[in-house]
Amino acid sequence: MTGTRAWHLASRPSGLPDMTHFDLRDIAPQPLQVGMVRVENRWLSVDPYMRGRMNDVKSYVPPFEVGAPLQGGAVGKVVESRSPDLNVGDTVLHMMGWREQAVGEAKHFTKVPAMGVPDEQWLGNLGLTGATAYFGLLRVAEAREGDVVFVSAAAGAVGSAVVQIAKARGMTVIGSAGGEEKCAWVRELGADAAIDYKAGRVVRQLMDAAPEGIDVYFDNVGGDHLDAAFAAARNNARFAICGMIENYNAGPPPSFRYIMRVIAARIRMQGFIFTDFMAEMPDFYRDMGSWIAEGKVKSRETVREGIEAMPQAFLDLFSGGNIGKMLVKL
Amino acid sequence: MTGTRAWHLASRPSGLPDMTHFDLRDIAPQPLQVGMVRVENRWLSVDPYMRGRMNDVKSYVPPFEVGAPLQGGAVGKVVESRSPDLNVGDTVLHMMGWREQAVGEAKHFTKVPAMGVPDEQWLGNLGLTGATAYFGLLRVAEAREGDVVFVSAAAGAVGSAVVQIAKARGMTVIGSAGGEEKCAWVRELGADAAIDYKAGRVVRQLMDAAPEGIDVYFDNVGGDHLDAAFAAARNNARFAICGMIENYNAGPPPSFRYIMRVIAARIRMQGFIFTDFMAEMPDFYRDMGSWIAEGKVKSRETVREGIEAMPQAFLDLFSGGNIGKMLVKL
Repeated sequence: MTGTRAWHLASRPSGLPDMTHFDLRDIAPQPLQVGMVRVENRWLSVDPYMRGRMNDVKSYVPPFEVGAPLQGGAVGKVVESRSPDLNVGDTVLHMMGWREQAVGEAKHFTKVPAMGVPDEQWLGNLGLTGATAYFGLLRVAEAREGDVVFVSAAAGAVGSAVVQIAKARGMTVIGSAGGEEKCAWVRELGADAAIDYKAGRVVRQLMDAAPEGIDVYFDNVGGDHLDAAFAAARNNARFAICGMIENYNAGPPPSFRYIMRVIAARIRMQGFIFTDFMAEMPDFYRDMGSWIAEGKVKSRETVREGIEAMPQAFLDLFSGGNIGKMLVKL
Repeated sequence: MTGTRAWHLASRPSGLPDMTHFDLRDIAPQPLQVGMVRVENRWLSVDPYMRGRMNDVKSYVPPFEVGAPLQGGAVGKVVESRSPDLNVGDTVLHMMGWREQAVGEAKHFTKVPAMGVPDEQWLGNLGLTGATAYFGLLRVAEAREGDVVFVSAAAGAVGSAVVQIAKARGMTVIGSAGGEEKCAWVRELGADAAIDYKAGRVVRQLMDAAPEGIDVYFDNVGGDHLDAAFAAARNNARFAICGMIENYNAGPPPSFRYIMRVIAARIRMQGFIFTDFMAEMPDFYRDMGSWIAEGKVKSRETVREGIEAMPQAFLDLFSGGNIGKMLVKL
């Protein structure tokens, strides 16, 4: 039994993190206690929300500890088991990412159902990413057939799922992304219009794409995108606030020229985390499973190779380095 | 029959209005057609929302027209009637304020119920002001017994009603106002704490007054107050956005350092206009009527005298010149 490697938080960043905040260390071999399993990770999830856990601030998940291994979604195979609940060879989903090998009590690992989908989908459209898109769009924003939906970071993991779910449910969709390649992919996913936020002011482009306004905004970005949504909102518009990646790192506080429209248009803005909807996961698996089977929801990944690639993959999220879900393959 | 005077919109202001935007003109005597009444106004309502109507922007009410009389809530007495629905001597509530005499079809005037309250209350706690406070707090923010409620402009017309309704319903209330005199009155109304926004940063003072956070924010102000509410919000906090008086006139767009807490705290922010709740007015009259009768909701007015005083009374709203409801008495 040899040791394995795990990325540790070396220190807390105050603005944009860089490689100095991460430290790849060997972990001594951990013997298995009764009830525990050993898992070789195959896929590591790379998600923007992890930035929040690097701060020492109470949030919806506890902060990462300095000097301890980082955490995150991962899929792996059981290679040793002292639990009756999991067998060697089982494919499991869990939260001990950022490392090669995960060791823990069997209850922290979920055996993935045999649905014939690639393993990495459990970190994407059938995982946190897809569930965030599904519950945010359909439950939080209560988007309905016929609605005009605006979604930012539409070429990202969550955004690309939002575009496809919205089209599967008969909505008109406008997605924003940075650059022509991403916009082309957003249109390929079925979006009725794509806005390249690098090519001009978002508010102007959104007004052109949706001259009669929007009913729903799915926010992954904050800042100018959120302000454009305030400007374009129809009466009784609903905003699901999923992320504000523009504001995760240091910088001046975002300003909003059109926020006062909240009143006249009776905008409802609601923040959420997908775990608020755990009780409704069966609905999600049913709908998303059938959309994937029917080809209505497709996935695309940006894959980096090897444990060494993990921090840079994470940092690249903040400069738009991914199309679709960012993953590290071990 | 002599002519009467009415304030006209002389031109549209781009920032803070001044006296040059208003013009007091004589109106030629208007003969009554069948079905019409003539009303001598006694009380004119002075409200911040009127600023929005001075812009040429589609909003929840149409903009004032340049060169035409301004409009607003008013209470008066019928002095001539050619309608079977209203008699000379009736006290009526209507929207033809900013003028001495109102002439129109009887359907535009509502005879006030005989409730033994002073006439001007129909513009205050039993009118737009009270209904805005009631529906915003109880319906939009769904404030409940035990909630910690923060309300800005708590010495204003709407805010002072919010403070008292919240106390009548068993909530903890923190009100903000500008200066010690106003804060003393906010405490007198029953608020558990009052914040003087002129005496220090709102966010710091709010954190001190509500160390465990707030469940509800009733926003009349926007800007730093709204940002402080983002900072102090507990999980599942509800914000009713009634007004953003800080942002009604020109200035840099407001910025929000803490808006990202919308996500982690699952804040719900909802704009509203009290007319959205017209179907529930009987609930309002029942509850507000009994609170007034029991002395749980008291009113206070800042009264200016004479039609000439109207524009300055309006302008003074934006420099905090009123305690309670601003009115002009004719």
